[in-house]
Amino acid sequence: MLVWLLHYRGGIDYDSYDGYRVFNVHPFLMFCGFIFLSGEAMMVYKTVKAEHFVQKVAHMILQLGAFVLGVVGICAVFKFHDMQSIEDVYSLHSWIGIATISLFALQVKQKTQKIPWVVGLFTFMFTQTQTTRATLLPWHICGGRTLLYMSIAAALTGLMEKATFMQLSHSREARLLNFLGLSILLFGIFVDLSVALARYV
Amino acid sequence: MLVWLLHYRGGIDYDSYDGYRVFNVHPFLMFCGFIFLSGEAMMVYKTVKAEHFVQKVAHMILQLGAFVLGVVGICAVFKFHDMQSIEDVYSLHSWIGIATISLFALQVKQKTQKIPWVVGLFTFMFTQTQTTRATLLPWHICGGRTLLYMSIAAALTGLMEKATFMQLSHSREARLLNFLGLSILLFGIFVDLSVALARYV
Ligand code: HEM
Ligand code: HEM
Repeated sequence: MLVWLLHYRGGIDYDSYDGYRVFNVHPFLMFCGFIFLSGEAMMVYKTVKAEHFVQKVAHMILQLGAFVLGVVGICAVFKFHDMQSIEDVYSLHSWIGIATISLFALQVKQKTQKIPWVVGLFTFMFTQTQTTRATLLPWHICGGRTLLYMSIAAALTGLMEKATFMQLSHSREARLLNFLGLSILLFGIFVDLSVALARYV
Repeated sequence: MLVWLLHYRGGIDYDSYDGYRVFNVHPFLMFCGFIFLSGEAMMVYKTVKAEHFVQKVAHMILQLGAFVLGVVGICAVFKFHDMQSIEDVYSLHSWIGIATISLFALQVKQKTQKIPWVVGLFTFMFTQTQTTRATLLPWHICGGRTLLYMSIAAALTGLMEKATFMQLSHSREARLLNFLGLSILLFGIFVDLSVALARYV
């Protein structure tokens, strides 16, 4: 992705006067920030060999980081649309994107159970009873997987849209983008498998 | 989807001289054939109240139907590209599509374990030992889910590509397509949830 954005697309710069360099912040943060961090967060219970509490804190911090970077990434594309006077949220990609980031926020909320947002974040580990937690857990896990695949779908439709806009076909850049898309898909699949299959082995 | 293809896009006809009507076979069969049938096949163990053996046969027949319709659907788009002299398999969408349908074929093969394809299909239920089956099952389940989401990703990138080609933005047709895309995504999510959560409740 960096090769694409830096070499082919002129770089990444949120404060640039060149709208396209502002746009480039969007794919970068959405994948390297949002998707990558939340994928790592999902695997934390398997990758971090530490107490359960430490794993939970790591899970939460990574998800929080993912969310913040995701929001900044979406701000970048809104800024780009502003600068170029393009209308907002017309495409399937943007609809899936909005749905993903909104449900992502709800997923936190679900864990905190009606406690106001920020406060909830720092108290949920102590306030929930064992039974509500046990009831919510499968929903939280399945919800997380759903969100993972939704964000993958958002990223792939985004890449597809950009490639179609640019009318790439059999060029090098097109091939780079296709491999990038397949890698993002594979990342999602392997996160899913490593979380799901770990319950059997 | 039918409203879109019949009302806005001039109809569905594999044998037409109008390339676009041949193309329209593609989204129709890929969703209403491939994705819908294989989704139903995944849920068969929960929806069909019958002996386990009957469920398995239903599962297999539905998957087989899905595969056949999927292959015909892909043939349609190749025929369209032939008629219009467009190059083949250049886009991220087509790469994901090819990967999906190929792995779908392997998923059957995995169940049949080195027994030649068609023969295997009709004998696998009797020839596998209990232990190989039990070992393969989680892989088969996770693989199935992966394929489900891959086909959803293929469908969404396809819709996105078509919408960008046609340069739709805030028109009625664009909105119809976005709702169609969201519904396909929701279909995938609900199939996943109804299979996965059923193990907990
Ligand atoms: C999880 C990942 C992603 C999310 C949640 C997301 C979200 C969004 C949202 C909400 C918009 C609408 C902004 C507006 O209408 O003003 C948008 C626009 C856009 N995004 Fe993404 N995005 C993601 C990844 C990507 C990636 C990887 C690319 C690759 C190039 C991309 C390309 C685009 C393009 C070209 C637009 C402008 C056209 C449009 O509105 O559809 N996005 N994105
Ligand atoms: C599981 C679902 C799907 C699969 C596996 C799939 C697979 C494919 C494949 C393999 C091609 C390449 C054919 C070639 O290059 O000659 C293709 C092309 C195409 N498909 Fe799909 N497709 C799916 C769903 C859809 C849907 C729902 C649409 C919606 C309109 C769509 C739109 C297109 C378009 C516009 C092309 C031609 C441009 C290109 O090659 O990318 N596809 N599809």
